[in-house]
Amino acid sequence: MGSAIADVAARAGVSKATASRALSGKGYVAEKTRMRVQQAAKEIGYVASPNAASLVTGQTQNIGVVIPFINRWFFGEILEGIEEALLNRGYDTTLYNLHPGSSDRDRVFDFFLARKRFDGVIAIGVEPTPEEAGRLLRLGIPMVSVGAPVAGIRSLTIDDAGVARLATEHLIGLGHRRIAHIGGEIGGPDENTVHNKRLDGYLQAMTRAGLEAEIRTARTAMSVPGGYDAGIHAMSDAMSRPSAVFAACDEIAIGVIIAARRIGIRVPGDLSVIGIDGHEYAEMFSLTTIEQQPRAQGLAAVTDLLAAIAGEPSTVEVVEMPARLVVRASTAHADLGADAV
Amino acid sequence: MGSAIADVAARAGVSKATASRALSGKGYVAEKTRMRVQQAAKEIGYVASPNAASLVTGQTQNIGVVIPFINRWFFGEILEGIEEALLNRGYDTTLYNLHPGSSDRDRVFDFFLARKRFDGVIAIGVEPTPEEAGRLLRLGIPMVSVGAPVAGIRSLTIDDAGVARLATEHLIGLGHRRIAHIGGEIGGPDENTVHNKRLDGYLQAMTRAGLEAEIRTARTAMSVPGGYDAGIHAMSDAMSRPSAVFAACDEIAIGVIIAARRIGIRVPGDLSVIGIDGHEYAEMFSLTTIEQQPRAQGLAAVTDLLAAIAGEPSTVEVVEMPARLVVRASTAHADLGADAV
Repeated sequence: MGSAIADVAARAGVSKATASRALSGKGYVAEKTRMRVQQAAKEIGYVASPNAASLVTGQTQNIGVVIPFINRWFFGEILEGIEEALLNRGYDTTLYNLHPGSSDRDRVFDFFLARKRFDGVIAIGVEPTPEEAGRLLRLGIPMVSVGAPVAGIRSLTIDDAGVARLATEHLIGLGHRRIAHIGGEIGGPDENTVHNKRLDGYLQAMTRAGLEAEIRTARTAMSVPGGYDAGIHAMSDAMSRPSAVFAACDEIAIGVIIAARRIGIRVPGDLSVIGIDGHEYAEMFSLTTIEQQPRAQGLAAVTDLLAAIAGEPSTVEVVEMPARLVVRASTAHADLGADAV
Repeated sequence: MGSAIADVAARAGVSKATASRALSGKGYVAEKTRMRVQQAAKEIGYVASPNAASLVTGQTQNIGVVIPFINRWFFGEILEGIEEALLNRGYDTTLYNLHPGSSDRDRVFDFFLARKRFDGVIAIGVEPTPEEAGRLLRLGIPMVSVGAPVAGIRSLTIDDAGVARLATEHLIGLGHRRIAHIGGEIGGPDENTVHNKRLDGYLQAMTRAGLEAEIRTARTAMSVPGGYDAGIHAMSDAMSRPSAVFAACDEIAIGVIIAARRIGIRVPGDLSVIGIDGHEYAEMFSLTTIEQQPRAQGLAAVTDLLAAIAGEPSTVEVVEMPARLVVRASTAHADLGADAV
């Protein structure tokens, strides 16, 4: 292949190194130069051989990505962020969609990921066990995890218990007492999952405020229809109806708001709702939320993984990503309902 | 590697062929046997080498998938369907997210896909040009396209103009005359895109019904916020407000319904809304729609591509996938508004 890339370079009037950079997308090349090289490659019918490159560098330029859902906003955003960052650096993104509790889990970790096909692995929201991660590491395949922190693995996380406390305290600060938490569906009490940590944060905030007696929780699918169903259920009894809901994610929160509108409960007049995420629909539903940046998390995961692949030592194992309270009109003072009526 | 798989087979008490099937996921293996083989592989620390297999078969067991959006429902569903079908057959899914009009298009088609890394390519909603597809075919990489039919490429499609006529005629049949179409954002008149075909179907139905004077169209992002913005705009002038909207996809239709509720326009009392897709939120919004099955389309694309890779001759180039009208409560007779008031 050496002569072919040389032909492309000669035709485009650039060095072989520049032609290689332009075709692979790795390293800087001026846009005009890149287009000239691509045009030359097309005219010659040049086809790059990653296998040839791989034999020299020992690298595959391919990253395995494990994700529990594709078609939920937070995960879709992270995945778009990862794919874009990897493509810009000349890497492929190979995708494994591993639903929670999937019987494919062993097959994906022990067979698909453990081949000599990947330079590294990014696991999102699947919380690899130390065994799963250790096995890949022994094969020389570094891993970055996004989600709840996992011992021994570089983990990008938000302070899930902390943001849940913040969300709950926002409602308490508005005078709400009967605050329900609607959380994610999966997980026994011992499971190291994002939604168990958010449940913990809610319980801490309620307890600190002396509202133990007002604690009420429900679990549902972390989706808009999941939130809709749980919302209808939570609001069905006028006597016990909460005055505020802290939803474990924005999709649940949006489902609760749609349910409230459907059955004639005013938001925020009769019900305040807060979520976590910063969903693209948040503005449309005037949703108060704790905003995080899943695309930026995807980019950070790529940056950290490529550094590990390059052999750079990593000192911090758990990296906390930013999250901030964004107040919109879906939360209001607990007295607003009485005032407005 | 031969001896390693033999070790795994011996330890699990099965034949080498069975052990190989169990670890790769290709071919039938009883669940209990599969678990025993995986356990044996774990104990031995066996790592499969796809490259070794690849040298024998000449295949990579890797499929390139090109898709314009990950985080929109229809595309997310297709992608989940493709990944699941490929994983079940022991194939990797390598993902290229190519937004409409992306400057990466040449780089993806001419460099990334044109390497010796893929056994085949699935293109969803990106409508490859004959040149793009022909180049891959000459390299021995077959392609299946999902979306608007493309000459010379096996294309899975729905009759987009036909379903758009059906949706529009549903509204006409309910007595509506002032029917607006809110369609997708991209595309000049010559572009071979799904949303241009849906616009055509609307125009045909309106013209056939003698409603040329009532034609009004708008374009927006094919997303819920896109539909919300276009809906607010379409309903802002009470004098010219349509009595019905045919939205080019369910996400637009749902955005229109959210906008209508927000500004106090009743659906279907004041406004009937119909979409296309069969979105997971359709039930929640009582949305009348033309339902298609994106997951089944993804599975069909995989089946057809693997048949092409296996060298099976394909006779039909354009395959029409099923779509059907599902009537819910978002559409009603045009007189309902007057009656209900």
